[in-house]
Amino acid sequence: MLKNNVETFLACDKEYNDADIVMFGAPFDSTTSFRPGTRFGPNAVRSESFGIETYSPYQNRDLEDINVMDSGDIELRIGDTEAVLAQIEERAAKILSDGKIPFMIGGEHLVTLGAFRAAAEKYPDIHIVHFDAHADLREDYLGVKLSHACVLRRCWDIIGDDRIHQFGIRSGERSEFEFAKTHTDMHPFTLEDVPQLVKEIGRSKPVYFTLDLDVLDPSVFPGTGTPEPGGVNFDQLRRAAAAVCSGLNIVACDVNELSPHYDHSGISTAAACKIIREILLAI
Amino acid sequence: MLKNNVETFLACDKEYNDADIVMFGAPFDSTTSFRPGTRFGPNAVRSESFGIETYSPYQNRDLEDINVMDSGDIELRIGDTEAVLAQIEERAAKILSDGKIPFMIGGEHLVTLGAFRAAAEKYPDIHIVHFDAHADLREDYLGVKLSHACVLRRCWDIIGDDRIHQFGIRSGERSEFEFAKTHTDMHPFTLEDVPQLVKEIGRSKPVYFTLDLDVLDPSVFPGTGTPEPGGVNFDQLRRAAAAVCSGLNIVACDVNELSPHYDHSGISTAAACKIIREILLAI
Amino acid sequence: MLKNNVETFLACDKEYNDADIVMFGAPFDSTTSFRPGTRFGPNAVRSESFGIETYSPYQNRDLEDINVMDSGDIELRIGDTEAVLAQIEERAAKILSDGKIPFMIGGEHLVTLGAFRAAAEKYPDIHIVHFDAHADLREDYLGVKLSHACVLRRCWDIIGDDRIHQFGIRSGERSEFEFAKTHTDMHPFTLEDVPQLVKEIGRSKPVYFTLDLDVLDPSVFPGTGTPEPGGVNFDQLRRAAAAVCSGLNIVACDVNELSPHYDHSGISTAAACKIIREILLAI
Amino acid sequence: MLKNNVETFLACDKEYNDADIVMFGAPFDSTTSFRPGTRFGPNAVRSESFGIETYSPYQNRDLEDINVMDSGDIELRIGDTEAVLAQIEERAAKILSDGKIPFMIGGEHLVTLGAFRAAAEKYPDIHIVHFDAHADLREDYLGVKLSHACVLRRCWDIIGDDRIHQFGIRSGERSEFEFAKTHTDMHPFTLEDVPQLVKEIGRSKPVYFTLDLDVLDPSVFPGTGTPEPGGVNFDQLRRAAAAVCSGLNIVACDVNELSPHYDHSGISTAAACKIIREILLAI
Amino acid sequence: MLKNNVETFLACDKEYNDADIVMFGAPFDSTTSFRPGTRFGPNAVRSESFGIETYSPYQNRDLEDINVMDSGDIELRIGDTEAVLAQIEERAAKILSDGKIPFMIGGEHLVTLGAFRAAAEKYPDIHIVHFDAHADLREDYLGVKLSHACVLRRCWDIIGDDRIHQFGIRSGERSEFEFAKTHTDMHPFTLEDVPQLVKEIGRSKPVYFTLDLDVLDPSVFPGTGTPEPGGVNFDQLRRAAAAVCSGLNIVACDVNELSPHYDHSGISTAAACKIIREILLAI
Amino acid sequence: MLKNNVETFLACDKEYNDADIVMFGAPFDSTTSFRPGTRFGPNAVRSESFGIETYSPYQNRDLEDINVMDSGDIELRIGDTEAVLAQIEERAAKILSDGKIPFMIGGEHLVTLGAFRAAAEKYPDIHIVHFDAHADLREDYLGVKLSHACVLRRCWDIIGDDRIHQFGIRSGERSEFEFAKTHTDMHPFTLEDVPQLVKEIGRSKPVYFTLDLDVLDPSVFPGTGTPEPGGVNFDQLRRAAAAVCSGLNIVACDVNELSPHYDHSGISTAAACKIIREILLAI
Repeated sequence: MLKNNVETFLACDKEYNDADIVMFGAPFDSTTSFRPGTRFGPNAVRSESFGIETYSPYQNRDLEDINVMDSGDIELRIGDTEAVLAQIEERAAKILSDGKIPFMIGGEHLVTLGAFRAAAEKYPDIHIVHFDAHADLREDYLGVKLSHACVLRRCWDIIGDDRIHQFGIRSGERSEFEFAKTHTDMHPFTLEDVPQLVKEIGRSKPVYFTLDLDVLDPSVFPGTGTPEPGGVNFDQLRRAAAAVCSGLNIVACDVNELSPHYDHSGISTAAACKIIREILLAI
Repeated sequence: MLKNNVETFLACDKEYNDADIVMFGAPFDSTTSFRPGTRFGPNAVRSESFGIETYSPYQNRDLEDINVMDSGDIELRIGDTEAVLAQIEERAAKILSDGKIPFMIGGEHLVTLGAFRAAAEKYPDIHIVHFDAHADLREDYLGVKLSHACVLRRCWDIIGDDRIHQFGIRSGERSEFEFAKTHTDMHPFTLEDVPQLVKEIGRSKPVYFTLDLDVLDPSVFPGTGTPEPGGVNFDQLRRAAAAVCSGLNIVACDVNELSPHYDHSGISTAAACKIIREILLAI
Repeated sequence: MLKNNVETFLACDKEYNDADIVMFGAPFDSTTSFRPGTRFGPNAVRSESFGIETYSPYQNRDLEDINVMDSGDIELRIGDTEAVLAQIEERAAKILSDGKIPFMIGGEHLVTLGAFRAAAEKYPDIHIVHFDAHADLREDYLGVKLSHACVLRRCWDIIGDDRIHQFGIRSGERSEFEFAKTHTDMHPFTLEDVPQLVKEIGRSKPVYFTLDLDVLDPSVFPGTGTPEPGGVNFDQLRRAAAAVCSGLNIVACDVNELSPHYDHSGISTAAACKIIREILLAI
Repeated sequence: MLKNNVETFLACDKEYNDADIVMFGAPFDSTTSFRPGTRFGPNAVRSESFGIETYSPYQNRDLEDINVMDSGDIELRIGDTEAVLAQIEERAAKILSDGKIPFMIGGEHLVTLGAFRAAAEKYPDIHIVHFDAHADLREDYLGVKLSHACVLRRCWDIIGDDRIHQFGIRSGERSEFEFAKTHTDMHPFTLEDVPQLVKEIGRSKPVYFTLDLDVLDPSVFPGTGTPEPGGVNFDQLRRAAAAVCSGLNIVACDVNELSPHYDHSGISTAAACKIIREILLAI
Repeated sequence: MLKNNVETFLACDKEYNDADIVMFGAPFDSTTSFRPGTRFGPNAVRSESFGIETYSPYQNRDLEDINVMDSGDIELRIGDTEAVLAQIEERAAKILSDGKIPFMIGGEHLVTLGAFRAAAEKYPDIHIVHFDAHADLREDYLGVKLSHACVLRRCWDIIGDDRIHQFGIRSGERSEFEFAKTHTDMHPFTLEDVPQLVKEIGRSKPVYFTLDLDVLDPSVFPGTGTPEPGGVNFDQLRRAAAAVCSGLNIVACDVNELSPHYDHSGISTAAACKIIREILLAI
Repeated sequence: MLKNNVETFLACDKEYNDADIVMFGAPFDSTTSFRPGTRFGPNAVRSESFGIETYSPYQNRDLEDINVMDSGDIELRIGDTEAVLAQIEERAAKILSDGKIPFMIGGEHLVTLGAFRAAAEKYPDIHIVHFDAHADLREDYLGVKLSHACVLRRCWDIIGDDRIHQFGIRSGERSEFEFAKTHTDMHPFTLEDVPQLVKEIGRSKPVYFTLDLDVLDPSVFPGTGTPEPGGVNFDQLRRAAAAVCSGLNIVACDVNELSPHYDHSGISTAAACKIIREILLAI
């Protein structure tokens, strides 16, 4: 008898009970201030993941050998930001309560707040490792507090000083960089200091890893809402992400800000797919 | 001494006090359920308006001969829908209170609700003429009531039965079409009945004209969030819009749903510019 | 417990045993002579089908009310044409043998040959109704007989004269048009004669309906391998397809030649989705 | 021995001495006021001509049966408008002096002036048939007299009143339409009056036929510098062009304003190729 | 009372009298030999500048703290190259005579000649620092001397040997590289020697800085007329430009060759906006 | 008398008898498993080659000084893979038998097999130098042995162990990398080991050089079927290719996998043109 083909991310087709990592999409972009469209990110990485291999020659590991379920997208209540965050938090909390690692695909960066709330609830001593072009530390954006431009500030509201480790940041208001000096552990412009952090923290702390793909240079990753020239190249990101995911105790993770309709040649989506594979294999 | 070039819509450069019509942009698209991007609509029509002429050979009139001010975009609080609608209402109310006609450029269709609230406040016996591919009559969309898919329903909440005249509608849920049977004056699929309505109402009633440009066939107007095949062609729209604007008593007006980033060849923006010119000359 | 979201064509999510119509994708384009890419057609119509409604105001019917299963794509042996056709024939034969109607989404037009072989095996007195810009009646194309440009000729090899009814044809070699004069029932340029055919044949004969979407004008349907100016508009196609599918005894069907990577604005995919909905509701 | 493949327009590969019609490209666009890029027009029609057939089912004629040479592009002195026009005039004059018909592919519309000078030199009683969206009758454009926006005015400088027959015009300044009233034979908006003109003039006069492809609606022909909504469809153009070319005494001809870099889906180039084929077969 | 929003480059909204730097656009591209479209450059950088911040974390400076006026585009006489250069020269001379620094946004590289004439008139001992992929040292291009490909040669006509410092050059005819050996100070392929030049010249000489953005690698800057692989990355350019602008005595400046219609993903425009910000802050 | 302009690759217009290198196009892509379209590669490099110069400042050589003929594309029998390979083999064999070097432009990578068969027939001791992102060492792909994903394996079938030198490989199945360990000389991820190989082999062996352009990072070369992030930049490729072509005894060569319809900005085609120039000058 015929049955439906299920389109999941490449080889992430395990049953929920068997899965160690559970992927889900959060197709939300309503607070995007410049170019929207990250809502199409999760679907794009699924479709295009079949352009890469399951095997990583860098790590000599294969997605076929690990247990990941792609549970599809949450059907979000577009137009009601707080409701959307609650839906995301609920999904992440369920996965965490079943002893699995939630792996969220955005969407814009604000979705991190939903999943992080669930993770911080379970792990009060959690740290955040944050790769991004933008500081995302504003108190508000045109009067709106639940904005992608404020997401790490909202996380800081929850966990406070010295627990947010930011890398690659190359854009923000002056006040954000000043805030970072006293409240976060910011390493601007590059990912060069990542190995040092991994060495310092090791597996002693639960860590939420949030990867805003615009940390990549726009030449490598044009398909995003706010291209910011001067970022890292793919190998630099691959190495740093692998270091974080294999060296730290990752309890939850997200990859966000792919906007595929600005990715006319498909190279951004390919970069997203490959870094997701490398993270899954490194965790 | 040098002064700044002001970029307005073509020839709409009168001072506020001298203007009979005041144009403004409402760059909002946060409740868009499919492809976002109409926030770039107002800017695109300004830039590209210089590709058309100020003179209309159809009407033998010229934008140089009338008094229109383009007052630029409102800086909207993206991420807070109710606040956005209030900002729009305030701008429209100001223009109306000064005895001028507000002419809003969207943005997604929900922006109509803001301007319409102001118009209905001033003109309690107002009617709506609505050209669109979609009925926009849902009670809610995934639980959200302030959604582009509900905008005419929200207007109906204000003015009730038999005052909304819908033309060109070719998409919606079954329940929307059933609602229309008893609550609105719906003429599906074409604009053929427009002259009859103009004849019936004439200049006896104040009228809000809301034009969702996706009433056009996607071949003519690809640059929109939800392309719906089977629409009218440009000349059909031009004739119907001119009939409405010259034959009825238009007190406020909007043109919405241009999404220029899906308009790779620029033809949608050109169509928007030209229909705006024709409406301005016909009012 | 979480389960995978299954991505099917809009509302075509019935179980196989309950389905009256079974949809499947045939993502093949290896014999395309001009611009390849129709292999991405089935995936595109699934993803983008969520931009249209399940309800048709034209027919006052809803996809929710009928039983259709979308069984996903066949994983084809790209590079071996004969093997590909055998895979398609096998899928269609299985569906036919279970008393259901196969509904194939191409892929290039050659895929029709696979499904038609199965249908002609079950229904030896079968007719073909063929909407297309191109005659597809060549004996061979650069020496290759299994080519999209020869597909109706290969069907004719099976069923012979006077059983292929061609509409909308506006391109071909002189020899194809001469072949048509004595061997097929060709109505060039338009779909105007479709109602007459429906009247003549009625439900007395089993009919295979093959719709090459490039019968549409390229303005309506740019996303195809060989755009041929001068085609029908969407409403003309919608009316003719509905007449065929509601007036004739359709036993198998296909819709082909959508090439989404040439459909930058998404209007071709939207047209494909909507005509598929209308056909499903009319059968 | 191997020899070079010569890329000509489809089947236009006769030797110069054998040719009745000689095609050449004039890749010039330096006076374009809005979106440049028509310089790529001649190359695009050659490359893409292989997507259509040599046979026309409309006329039941085949390019294989007539004698056309495509002599390639003139290497123009970009940056010096008068020199460019002189180069074009020289090429056209050579072809005319050898008793052949020059068929120029633009390039922007100003190139017509070069070829027309040669034709008017040989045929002092020449008429012009002009299909276009724009009147092109300005005395100057921002002080520049050799501009695409002035080209028919420059032709009028040579031949004077009542010899320029304009069809499809739907854009211009008021002064251009007023000029037309007393100096040209203008039929705005459509091509409906073309058969009447053909009947009146017949083959009694030498005629230069200049076809600005933007007479087509932008939905059919998006790939042009200044898209002007509200134009004719492909079949209307095909019929009118065939009427002109078979019913009048065409001594020179041009087809211009294809700007392929705005033609993302290739439909404009396909339309250009097909209308060129139809014209060649009708002359 | 409402007033017009003025669209200027990000935060460059000072009054003329208060400004130290005056920006203007020169939307000219008529001598472009390959892909035109740089005329849309100035408008694009204004619109898209709102995607970046006013603050530079590299320099710890903010555009809000300096006095720049964006005076809009000059309305150029397209089609008459010499007239265009005269218009540009006049604008630059006015700004220079008022003791301010002109900052021109091209347009193609030939526009530099207009502004440089004004600067060399005021500062006879002026030097040029030139970043580019192309040498631009031809005596003529197809017989035309006022061409983008000759612009540095035309500057050399004015100031002679050893005053033009060229960096990053990786393309040209053999004769251009030979000319450079004896007449200019050329440092091909990279920007590595820039700090050495800054050290040598210091603030002792007035310097005109002309930045052809195609010195960037096409991966970083695809939106240009003539992409030339093998260029520098964004950080290399940022560092070199900052060194030039903070270490030398810049009296006039231009940034040119952005062609936004080839910049489908917007990354080139973002790069242009960011380097303009960095230059403004460094001067 | 007028004659046809022949469009060849830049300056490769020598007669066959005079040529040392003979270029030809193999526009084939039927076994492509992801995004087809490399069939348009040869035509694109010809058209766009005029955007670069004939002179290389890197090598101080000029295409005008060497003898290359571009013999155009083979008209391939699309749809019959074995026939296509035979056509390619025949063309390469003819060129080799006349003592010239065949230089093939693909097309997908499988075309290499045709030309390599001819080269291995003439030079039984031939080696292969292979630059690629993908190992291309599968025994079969979905049961098909003549697939682009198997092409080096098919070459290995002919020449066996230790004669295939692979560089830059960063993608494949685990089994391909294991195969490489014992059967090929694989240097994954970079081109750094190329100089060492050149030193070892020198001019002692005949070498076939096959360059899959996707060895470049997708930021530099987006226009390809299967973008694989993490590749080399243009200068790294240029240096390695020059080392191979000037240091080894190249008897045949190909450059493949440019898919221009995914190269919206033209940068991939520009990279292909420039590397072809550099290879031609280095051989």
